[in-house]
Parts: sequence; C-alpha cells; structure tokens
Amino acid sequence: MSAKYKIALCQMRSSADKDESMERAARYASDAAKGGAAIVSLPEMWNCPYDNAHFRAYAEEEGGPTVRFMSDLAKTNGVYLVGGSIPEFEADRVYNTAFVFAPDGRLLAKHRKVHLFDADIAGGVRFKESETLSPGSSLTTADTEFGKIGVAICYDIRFSKMFSAMADLGIHLLVLPAAFNMTTGPAHWELLLRARALDNQIYAAACSPARDLAAKYRAYGHSLIVNPWGELCGAAASDETVVFGDIDIDFMERVRGEIPIRTQRRDDVY
Amino acid sequence: MSAKYKIALCQMRSSADKDESMERAARYASDAAKGGAAIVSLPEMWNCPYDNAHFRAYAEEEGGPTVRFMSDLAKTNGVYLVGGSIPEFEADRVYNTAFVFAPDGRLLAKHRKVHLFDADIAGGVRFKESETLSPGSSLTTADTEFGKIGVAICYDIRFSKMFSAMADLGIHLLVLPAAFNMTTGPAHWELLLRARALDNQIYAAACSPARDLAAKYRAYGHSLIVNPWGELCGAAASDETVVFGDIDIDFMERVRGEIPIRTQRRDDVY
Repeated sequence: MSAKYKIALCQMRSSADKDESMERAARYASDAAKGGAAIVSLPEMWNCPYDNAHFRAYAEEEGGPTVRFMSDLAKTNGVYLVGGSIPEFEADRVYNTAFVFAPDGRLLAKHRKVHLFDADIAGGVRFKESETLSPGSSLTTADTEFGKIGVAICYDIRFSKMFSAMADLGIHLLVLPAAFNMTTGPAHWELLLRARALDNQIYAAACSPARDLAAKYRAYGHSLIVNPWGELCGAAASDETVVFGDIDIDFMERVRGEIPIRTQRRDDVY
Repeated sequence: MSAKYKIALCQMRSSADKDESMERAARYASDAAKGGAAIVSLPEMWNCPYDNAHFRAYAEEEGGPTVRFMSDLAKTNGVYLVGGSIPEFEADRVYNTAFVFAPDGRLLAKHRKVHLFDADIAGGVRFKESETLSPGSSLTTADTEFGKIGVAICYDIRFSKMFSAMADLGIHLLVLPAAFNMTTGPAHWELLLRARALDNQIYAAACSPARDLAAKYRAYGHSLIVNPWGELCGAAASDETVVFGDIDIDFMERVRGEIPIRTQRRDDVY
C-alpha cells in the first residue's frame, strides 16, 4: 500500500448534449492525470441534465457508449476513475449509478445510489428522484493498489450508518459523486463530508458538477477533499475546475493511533 | 408535549474547592432559571479539577452531598437539571457520571460516561481517563414533560452509532456535558455536535466548563446549542456565562418532514 497519492475531482458542467459532456469529461480527466492524480472522479449525472424528465432518455445499459467511454478514459490516462454517475438502464428500471474503473480500463465496481433524493424543503429545493429512478441495495467498495475505497452517491451521505459500515469493510477513502443544491449545499455539504471523514477516520472526497445558472437544477459546486482529522485538504468554488488533494495513509494511521475510536467503540452498548 | 421551551448551559469554571464550585453552580443555575430555561445543564466534572490525580478524592456515592445539592438545585429553581458530571464512587470504582433531576428534585436518570477519554495527540493533548475511571455500559435517556432527552458525556460524542441508537429511542434533545481541550476543541467540537444534530434531526446542547488558564487541563469552552438543521442557535465564547437556546419541537418536526431520512434509511443494507 503506497503511503501517498493524489486524488482529483473534475468539477465540470453537464450538458444536454452527451458528446459535449464526454468531450468535457475527457479534457478534465486529462488535466487531472497531468496534474499527477492517481484516482480521478467525475460528478453525479455528468452526462445528463439533473432532471427527472431526462433520466430515462439518457439512460444506458452497462455495456453502453458512456461506460465504454469511461473505461477508455481510465485506460488512456492510466488512472482509477470513479465515473461520477450516469443513469443506468436495466430490466426497464433506471438507476443512478457510479461505475468505477481500474487504470487498465477494467470495471472494478458499480454503485447504484441507495438513497434516492426525495426531499421537499419549504422555500427551498423540491426533488423526487423516486418518480423515475430505482434504488440500489448494496454498499460499494473497490480494491485499488492504494487500498480499499468506498463509493456512494450524493443523498447517500446523509445516512451515517452507511459509512460506518463501509469503514468496517476497511476503506481509507470515500469518493462521493454528488450534486447538492443551493438550499442544502450551503447548509450541509461541508458539514456532512467533514463528519463522515472525522467519525470514520478516513479521507472523503466529494465531486460536484460546476454550478450552471442556466440549468433547472443548480448544483452547489464546492467539490472538496477532507482528511481523517476532519480538515479540508482541497476545495473548489462553484465554477468548472479540477480540485486536487493529497491522500496520506501514514497521516491517517497517525490520527487513528492518536484518537483510537476504532478500538474504543462499544458495540455491546449500541 | 409542549412545542417550545428554553435550555440553558452554565459554562462555569470548576474549582479545587467543592463549596466554591457549588456556590458558583447555584448562582449560574439561578441565572438560567431566571432567564426562562426549563432545562439547565452544568459542565463535565464541575465539582472537581479535571485531573486523574483528583477524581478519586473528589468522588462521592449516589447519595452524597453533591448529588443532594443538585437535587435541591433542580427543585429550588423548578427546572430539569442535567448535573454536568461528577466523579461517582461505587464499589471501589470511580465513574464520570451525569445525574439528571426533575423539577421536583427527583433523580430521573444517571449516565456513566461510556467512552473514557484515552487519547494521545502528537504536539497536543494527552489524557488517559482509564487510569482512574471505570466506564459505564448503558445509553441514557430521561423522560421530561417536553419529551425524551438523551444524555452523554464528552468523548462519547465521537461515537456516531451511540447517538443514532439514542435517536431510535426517541430523543428530541441531546445534552452533553463535556470538556474538550485546546487541541480537539478548535478542530472537532462544533463539527461533532452539528453532525449529531443534523444526522439525527435532534437538538444537541453541549455544556463545557469555562476556560481556566490557571488549570492544568484547559477546557475549550464554546458551549453551544445546535438545531436539527445543523445550525447553531446558541453559543458561548470561552469565559464564564450562561448560554440560552430555544428548543422548538415544531421546527424539528418540519425538518424531519422536509428531509425524511428517518423513514428513508435502509437498515437492510447497512
């Protein structure tokens, strides 16, 4: 297990034009690799407008062109790619799915968003993914040369037990493609990511689309990387950019030794 | 269940002189009651220097003078009192214990700190409570006229599952007597309390001692109250003071309805 490596989050806009989105993803992933990143993430629903009216029309099966594109992207750039998420079609259902690829282009894992974003906030955002999407039913981890990583999507982050369970599986990094909005983003985005990192003594990296004022759903942006001490070690504003963060396994082990909550917990009590 | 009430946190210094600590607690609890608080908390180890060298010497049995004093304090002021914590002696063991009283002085519950503070941070704080203290083995809740509250102590807050278990028991408020320090306070205090409130959609109130630059262990202070949206609704600096916060059950129910994570969670997955 290598002690240090770099992660990069491609905070790109999505477009109604799939080819344009792919071109953009290719450009940012290339920038990420040139910047030295060994793991690269795209944002949630990067090849599709974030809108129930579009998910089914943009959905592809596992062997479809966007999945093949992402596999090539991982291989061309020689990186682990967490392919943000795309609408995935299977047996007449549509899922919000993150495909994860190895540097040789091999599909390592896929995560289907477990918790669909059904929320209705007075004076704020209203969305009901379950009108069009079906939920996944599994935790998702993938083995890399750097150790095990966990992948979840956006609203999943609100469920703390999901991440303590993933930590029990031995992940050192959580990658979360996500598209928080202008209501919950300012209120909860950083808090939730910092809490998951601190509570589980892992790195947490959340990749948002850039904010697009012309889009129906305005993403918060602010892609960020948090270390196991709960500190930001990389953060974007709301425009398109690539955010880099250093993952340091030795630092993580030091934090785990200094505040040894992993051995002090009382599973007999709760 | 009343829809609204006020909580107050007495951010007082502790003293090596028990009588002086009791006088101070009486003064601040009285200020809290006069300010309209229905639930009042004292800080962790308020009648004892926070020091392994003192815990056993200051410890009292459940029927001891400090417990009787706190019962009187609740009754005199007509408030629910979370009596911070004191070293409790039983069967040759010493516990870090929070006694909780009803407005008629009745002992409602007691919480023995489950997770002892054993941490050793390079260049920062080192403490090992387990050198002198024994841990509790239970979650603690108490029924009040406002609904069920949960009580935990300081380092307990680092264990997220403890609080999801307490939330499952139906608490609407967590009261946490605590004495974070100048290393972990700035780094984690607010983050942990806000995360527990947001994740469990409850109010969380943490009562610290005031910072005492003459003390061996310097408390962070910054007592605070967080609402179920994860926002501060009351916060102190580091000096002696009483912090008030409004608890609004209707607001809590609104948050729970807007982001319905309590019904969306997937216990089948994690």
